[in-house]
Amino acid sequence: MKRYDHFGRIVRHAREARAWSQEALAEHADLNRSYLGEIERGDVVPSLNTMAKLSHALGVKLSELVARCEESTIF
Amino acid sequence: MKRYDHFGRIVRHAREARAWSQEALAEHADLNRSYLGEIERGDVVPSLNTMAKLSHALGVKLSELVARCEESTIF
Repeated sequence: MKRYDHFGRIVRHAREARAWSQEALAEHADLNRSYLGEIERGDVVPSLNTMAKLSHALGVKLSELVARCEESTIF
Repeated sequence: MKRYDHFGRIVRHAREARAWSQEALAEHADLNRSYLGEIERGDVVPSLNTMAKLSHALGVKLSELVARCEESTIF
């Protein structure tokens, strides 16, 4: 089964591509900064709603973020 | 912001396309049948792990299921 444990790293990579801090992304995504840190480290599993907030804030389609997980070519 | 409330309907549509009952999909996805019903009705928001289990059981990439949500052409 495809694993998506590295969704957090995909988010971090997209955040860094925007040169955003965790604070900036957390604010744009209306999420708690420390919770975002847990997501990026893979310490917690986000819900679909949280994933939608992150993709909206990052300006990247959620299907694209998920596809990057499936390709996992960026590690 | 893109909404994904209808992810459950996307799952139900993919399940029905396989002519599977909820019991069959719940079993394949190692999920509780009534929980699957709540997901399909949009009563609960699944986590990324639950979404991965469903996509694996349905044999449809998760990025594809999410993209169908984004296109939402099947309602």
